Amino acid sequence: MKIIIEDTTLRDGEQGVGIAFTAEDRVHVITELDELGVGAVETGYYSPDEPELNSRLLSLPCRDKLTAFCGTCRPGERADGDPTLVSLAQSGYRRAALFGKTMKTMVSAVLRAEPEENLRMIRESVKFLSSVGVRVTFDAEHIFDAVKTDPEYAFAALRAAADGGAAELMLCDTVGGSLPGEIADITKMAVKAFPGVIIGIHCHNDAGLAEACVLAAADAGASAVQGTISGIGERCGNANLNTVIPLLQLKRGYECVPPENLPRLTHTARYISEVANLRFDEREPFVGGYAFRHKAGTHIDATIKLPGSFEHIDPAAVGNSRGMVISGLSGRAAIVSRIKALTGAVPDKNDPRVIGVAARIKQLENEGYVFDAADASLTLVLLEALGTRRRFFEVLKYQITITEGSQSGAVLISPELAAEYEADPTRRAPEFYENNNACSAVVKVRVGGEYRITADEGNGPVNALDLALRKSLRHFYPEIVGMYLTDYKVRVLTTGAATASGVRVLIESSDGSETWRTVGVSSDVVEASCKALSDSIEYFLMQRKSEKGE
Amino acid sequence: MKIIIEDTTLRDGEQGVGIAFTAEDRVHVITELDELGVGAVETGYYSPDEPELNSRLLSLPCRDKLTAFCGTCRPGERADGDPTLVSLAQSGYRRAALFGKTMKTMVSAVLRAEPEENLRMIRESVKFLSSVGVRVTFDAEHIFDAVKTDPEYAFAALRAAADGGAAELMLCDTVGGSLPGEIADITKMAVKAFPGVIIGIHCHNDAGLAEACVLAAADAGASAVQGTISGIGERCGNANLNTVIPLLQLKRGYECVPPENLPRLTHTARYISEVANLRFDEREPFVGGYAFRHKAGTHIDATIKLPGSFEHIDPAAVGNSRGMVISGLSGRAAIVSRIKALTGAVPDKNDPRVIGVAARIKQLENEGYVFDAADASLTLVLLEALGTRRRFFEVLKYQITITEGSQSGAVLISPELAAEYEADPTRRAPEFYENNNACSAVVKVRVGGEYRITADEGNGPVNALDLALRKSLRHFYPEIVGMYLTDYKVRVLTTGAATASGVRVLIESSDGSETWRTVGVSSDVVEASCKALSDSIEYFLMQRKSEKGE
Repeated sequence: MKIIIEDTTLRDGEQGVGIAFTAEDRVHVITELDELGVGAVETGYYSPDEPELNSRLLSLPCRDKLTAFCGTCRPGERADGDPTLVSLAQSGYRRAALFGKTMKTMVSAVLRAEPEENLRMIRESVKFLSSVGVRVTFDAEHIFDAVKTDPEYAFAALRAAADGGAAELMLCDTVGGSLPGEIADITKMAVKAFPGVIIGIHCHNDAGLAEACVLAAADAGASAVQGTISGIGERCGNANLNTVIPLLQLKRGYECVPPENLPRLTHTARYISEVANLRFDEREPFVGGYAFRHKAGTHIDATIKLPGSFEHIDPAAVGNSRGMVISGLSGRAAIVSRIKALTGAVPDKNDPRVIGVAARIKQLENEGYVFDAADASLTLVLLEALGTRRRFFEVLKYQITITEGSQSGAVLISPELAAEYEADPTRRAPEFYENNNACSAVVKVRVGGEYRITADEGNGPVNALDLALRKSLRHFYPEIVGMYLTDYKVRVLTTGAATASGVRVLIESSDGSETWRTVGVSSDVVEASCKALSDSIEYFLMQRKSEKGE
Repeated sequence: MKIIIEDTTLRDGEQGVGIAFTAEDRVHVITELDELGVGAVETGYYSPDEPELNSRLLSLPCRDKLTAFCGTCRPGERADGDPTLVSLAQSGYRRAALFGKTMKTMVSAVLRAEPEENLRMIRESVKFLSSVGVRVTFDAEHIFDAVKTDPEYAFAALRAAADGGAAELMLCDTVGGSLPGEIADITKMAVKAFPGVIIGIHCHNDAGLAEACVLAAADAGASAVQGTISGIGERCGNANLNTVIPLLQLKRGYECVPPENLPRLTHTARYISEVANLRFDEREPFVGGYAFRHKAGTHIDATIKLPGSFEHIDPAAVGNSRGMVISGLSGRAAIVSRIKALTGAVPDKNDPRVIGVAARIKQLENEGYVFDAADASLTLVLLEALGTRRRFFEVLKYQITITEGSQSGAVLISPELAAEYEADPTRRAPEFYENNNACSAVVKVRVGGEYRITADEGNGPVNALDLALRKSLRHFYPEIVGMYLTDYKVRVLTTGAATASGVRVLIESSDGSETWRTVGVSSDVVEASCKALSDSIEYFLMQRKSEKGE
């Protein structure tokens, strides 16, 4: 049986403490989820005040999967007079998730409306959107608590949505306190009561049971599931799609995403976690770095003698891999397939170079590197181990000076320097002129037998370093003006005396069409950045040279 | 009905990646768990080579709850000749958890023994320990997979343990892949087959269902539960006792700990997490800092009108408390309740100061600030808008110099500076000595009419700035040595020419008991860090002064 996965990472996920998505983040998340093959993606609370954001999202190829989220019209007001609903109807969204109340106590205490009026609001709001061709999911807030306390009214609310033309009734355990048995019973009732409508399930993790409740609902006939990547969301979070998808698909045989896409799941989970700037929980079921990593001696012994004896599924089914804290045997098949993709050659798993790559990756991971979100750096590591990495340049030395404060005054810029700024699309001169900060970098590089020392200024040490480094390399590789940085993230690796700890810097670069990511680790954030910057430039030069056959 | 909670944090928890407990840690964890009122505590893998550790633990008041963990005797050998079992029998432990195999395939592939021989090993090992008065729990490894594939042999293994005199049969879903329905069915079979023996449940979280499986087993008649604090453990971890205890006790009416102790749970969870040096997951059900923290404006509005409308239990029942995240979306009602908590005053929602705070928060959010993960900075914003913020110091100017590279050599440290490092517990001198980077900061601060310029060095610009700033402030506020940074996060706010973009820095600080978070935004990562650092120090000084009534 098919189950429609409806992602709400960008809406309910954003209601998690400390989580916020930029427009750019939303594009990345939507694109990645579409490639995984989910059925629908909520883009956030719909607001008429963000036409640019909405039209940007609706220009994406997967626009038909995008779902706008909003509430019903207000008490005493018409649905077709509600500014948000009217704007939504005209926005171009093909799907909407419309939330409404199903508990009488909430209707009177929070909406301050009569029970009948709430039913009208639901029915007319659903009807209004449906009438203009928007496919409506009715998010039935508190429905499980409502059925437990006043089933008649709860079902009247669902009926109102169905009468309005809702395509889906989403049963929301809003407060997250229901048990799997209750979820199953009430889901069965809804499936029976509304035979022509898709019944969905939306669970929260307040009792630690979100995924179990989704499983119970699916087995009771629900055929749509809402959830978020890594379970981010208000309070304790939502049902974790990283868990729900393989749980339903591998253990119960439901089809949540196209089977051939399931091995993509680990990548998707980690990628979106990076976009949200979250610390990925390596203990996550199925997709975590520790999920198939064996530590106890007895388990490792058994796993070597009888592979899989301490694993509940084949890790490759979700794109994960087995690991052993002491073995060094893990992941060589993956390395072979990577080398094949890169060079065309298919070395044996026991080829000393393959063994060398595995050992090198393990060593770097121990130092704090992660390659899931830094593909370009991983490629360079592979090429180095294969002996075919080409060193385009070497950073020999750098020095950075930062002066700041109310006394520091404006930066003096020579006309010559100003002209340079104008000529370089990769720097944001106007901001720089307005900035009181003076951060200057001196870099010394070597290319072949030639040395070059250059200086530049920027907003902050990493920007200054980036500009000075690329200025010096422009002399040797003029094509470098065609690339620029698009994102920059810093993560502290160990706690305790935090600013002195090791840091991992992830950099995303682009040449306008392709995007690539690199990583650097050091105890110093500037040095870590320099490593990631150097990898990024080297990767770009390598790609350009190979395109030209050089 | 009573359920015996058997903690295995110090044994199965320690099998989690990156987790290790010292002898001192074990004493702290055991004492805390005893005070919470669990029924038994595993102390770790039993080893005859640690007589000092074992006698130290067995001198604790709760010695009768302590459980030694070990395996059966080996194939072809006698139980009363097994060095580990003999040592355990004489150690003074009153309880043992003895693990053994229940799957034929594992017996032949891993133990390399005949099926009948394995049954003898189980029976005789249990019998030997029972005969000297040790209460034995038989940990039936892989029992669910065993029953699913070869129920006859699986039950023969349980029978061997029961015949040997086991007080408890612990059904272990060792690989963590079973579903709640399977757990319930097999638990019922065991309860029926062994009426005089306690049936227990031990679950892993590989499928994201550990707590749901424990619940299913309890409802099927299991009366003992193994688990770990925060669910730490091999791979994806074990059933989380922080969740299991209130789930079973509050939602199903089982007595896991004395009812009067349940409000201690949040403290216990956080305390043991600290001892294990883990980053506490604030999203944890029941005990997490976000578990009852509301963010969406509609939820906050409803919670104010109808407290508990978005809570599945009373937070106080587990020693937790309700909170509201303040953001531009949360509305003025949330601000009023925050001002009340801070000052005791209850201004009207239309009070100009409340309107002013709301406007100021919106403005700062537009600049890139987020306050839901930066409570301390939010407090300072509120106090400022109320006109009661006290400025302890002002950072007038700073300059940072970074020199790096293979030519830069080691940093020269004067004996005077080295002595200062020794005296300051907040810096990590050994790492610094080994670091080739030279990053120095000069800071000028004003306190009242007095100016002070200080310099210091560190790993990276922010660390150097932090050290120099606190060095200068130590002159005015000696108590500052009592605080230190525990985490540091950087997020780029807009993309495109990334290193020149605005950045948001989130800093977490601690004084050993309390933890607080601050935020800074700027186009320059060092300036953003400086703002967050300044807020952090100001908040600390404010708290200290108000404790002293100054």
